[in-house]
Amino acid sequence: MPASFHPPVRTLMGPGPSDVNPRILEALSRPTIGHLDPVFVGLMDEIKSLLQFAFQTKNALTLPVSAPGSAGMETCFVNLVSPGDTVVIAQNGVFGGRMQENVERCGGTAVMVKDEWGTAVDPQKVEDALKANPAAKVLAFVHAETSTGARSDAASLCELASSHDCLTIVDTVTSLGGIEVDIDGWGADAVYSGTQKCLSCVPGLSPVTFSERAAEVIKARDHRAQSWFLDLELVMSYWGEGAQRAYHHTAPINALYGLHEALLILHEEGLPEAWARHRRNHTALAAGLQTLGIEFVVDADHRLPQLNCVRFPDGIDDAAVRKALLGQYQLEIGAGLGPLAGKVWRIGLMGFASNQKNVLLCLGALESVLLQQGEKLEAGAAVAAAQASFAS
Amino acid sequence: MPASFHPPVRTLMGPGPSDVNPRILEALSRPTIGHLDPVFVGLMDEIKSLLQFAFQTKNALTLPVSAPGSAGMETCFVNLVSPGDTVVIAQNGVFGGRMQENVERCGGTAVMVKDEWGTAVDPQKVEDALKANPAAKVLAFVHAETSTGARSDAASLCELASSHDCLTIVDTVTSLGGIEVDIDGWGADAVYSGTQKCLSCVPGLSPVTFSERAAEVIKARDHRAQSWFLDLELVMSYWGEGAQRAYHHTAPINALYGLHEALLILHEEGLPEAWARHRRNHTALAAGLQTLGIEFVVDADHRLPQLNCVRFPDGIDDAAVRKALLGQYQLEIGAGLGPLAGKVWRIGLMGFASNQKNVLLCLGALESVLLQQGEKLEAGAAVAAAQASFAS
Repeated sequence: MPASFHPPVRTLMGPGPSDVNPRILEALSRPTIGHLDPVFVGLMDEIKSLLQFAFQTKNALTLPVSAPGSAGMETCFVNLVSPGDTVVIAQNGVFGGRMQENVERCGGTAVMVKDEWGTAVDPQKVEDALKANPAAKVLAFVHAETSTGARSDAASLCELASSHDCLTIVDTVTSLGGIEVDIDGWGADAVYSGTQKCLSCVPGLSPVTFSERAAEVIKARDHRAQSWFLDLELVMSYWGEGAQRAYHHTAPINALYGLHEALLILHEEGLPEAWARHRRNHTALAAGLQTLGIEFVVDADHRLPQLNCVRFPDGIDDAAVRKALLGQYQLEIGAGLGPLAGKVWRIGLMGFASNQKNVLLCLGALESVLLQQGEKLEAGAAVAAAQASFAS
Repeated sequence: MPASFHPPVRTLMGPGPSDVNPRILEALSRPTIGHLDPVFVGLMDEIKSLLQFAFQTKNALTLPVSAPGSAGMETCFVNLVSPGDTVVIAQNGVFGGRMQENVERCGGTAVMVKDEWGTAVDPQKVEDALKANPAAKVLAFVHAETSTGARSDAASLCELASSHDCLTIVDTVTSLGGIEVDIDGWGADAVYSGTQKCLSCVPGLSPVTFSERAAEVIKARDHRAQSWFLDLELVMSYWGEGAQRAYHHTAPINALYGLHEALLILHEEGLPEAWARHRRNHTALAAGLQTLGIEFVVDADHRLPQLNCVRFPDGIDDAAVRKALLGQYQLEIGAGLGPLAGKVWRIGLMGFASNQKNVLLCLGALESVLLQQGEKLEAGAAVAAAQASFAS
């Protein structure tokens, strides 16, 4: 006979989901109301405004897709890419590959511009590809690669696209709330994110925003989007302006309570303050990791403070260390993906989880487990280095 | 400055979301763990088993899609319908029309077999269509039409499809947990449901199940599904057998806690007991409505006990009544859709909300509001009729 599920209380310092603020967990459990209730329509309007704040945009077409980040990605592609279109994709990790899958499933041609995993997207290569493909309709890239911890220069890439008359599709899943995301400043056209990274909310929703220019392209389509569920022309009849909202699908009411609370927390802290906190905790973690002989995959200029992708020392049993961290300390850190599998750990310091307590816990726990594994380390040195960083 | 959102405490007796059991709301707020955590993988296995129980199936390919019911519908179509395929769709309400949208967006041809809204699907018309379209690959229909409250004969329709070598796609969004759903008994091939109806869970997930035969068709495809997010070949790498689960997308962890608890509650009660409870409360509601001069749209043999679609008396101000119920009694009932808009109410008695208390509340509140609107009624008669029904 199955019984109620009571999860262990973990500390989530992987690539996401990250630790959820208890205020958000509590919000999820508030009483459900109807998806056409006038009070709920008011909440939807507030969520839109708060998303515009988080994305730094005035885009009217800003809303949370009722499904995880990969559905947000698909929303961008199925609404902007038609059969026969060419899309230039800058790939420097897992998610550029997923973009290629999306383009091809839309009947488009993907022109791949590849950079090494762990490096930023090279704007020169992108410019060469845009020149070589003058018919390209869209440039797609990942701002913050969750698989490698690398940040690319979104402003420059959007400017390049614009100068070649291309729309942009930008993945900000791991960046939103952790480092600067400036949709209007960049001039980005179609942008998706996730809730379970630096917004510290539970997974399951994908905030998206579309520029006026992208909205015009969608309205001018001569065919229906291949997805009914993700067709923005239909979704907007529910999420659009005015008090009258036409039923499209049943919104995930309680998940939206959580997202509202998460955005409110970010609004209360302020964007620059949240970004500074992520930098400060990253700096302290990096100081501690250095004493453990653990090196970053990404060079200092392009590191994401919220996702620390690090090479562990030779001879370390990757799975055994992660299992010990989980078993002894209830601490989750992430494994490597793709070519980095078995070579790196991904240590998240995202949103609510980006705090001094977690920095010390992670360093102390990792040091303990590495000592158990026979590594020669000076006990306490990692924590001391982080303490010094916080004090400086 | 926005503030935390505190919803009013409604009683949800519309077409869904229905009232959520507080056990489920509490489950949503349990601590988030990782989507690859071994403890979470164990929970996924339990959810699969409980879904098999609820659907009455042994299908291995049984899982909750990480998005609402309309994404569950789309999962069935994008995985089974290829460009050029013919699909016979029996339409007797809103959701048959949505199926047509899905087929056409998959590049298929939809052969529509239409029945009047409020009636069951006519098996004879379906048989005629299957005979006239020998190349048809799929028969799609809605078991319990949420827009009209009509139940169709799923067993007969599946048998018809089988005898014409057709797969079936069956919508059980409103039926699962409220009336008998017997996937293996029917021999249905691809079935989707929702969480916010008779499972009394929050909206946002869509349980699906696929027969061995449907799974073979999916494996034998010579092209990729047009949706990456809903491609079952990829989704199954995460939801499939064994302890090793490959990352596809980040599962909506806390929503799945809620679904697990909802299925557990159904399991504790038992399927026949849950169906009997829905019938009993429907019978009492119907007795009360009769005293108010309110008639059912659907004939007695095909009525859904969980969704009572009723014509209100001539001259009633539809919107004013629903607004008064919401304002004075915090009670939500549903409006009509499509050709039934402005003519009917849809009164849900779904899952946790299907209880004696709600029957009396709804009748008492409706009677009060109708009296306020100047209707000539005997005060208390509706409640008395329901009490008599419960006592009998």
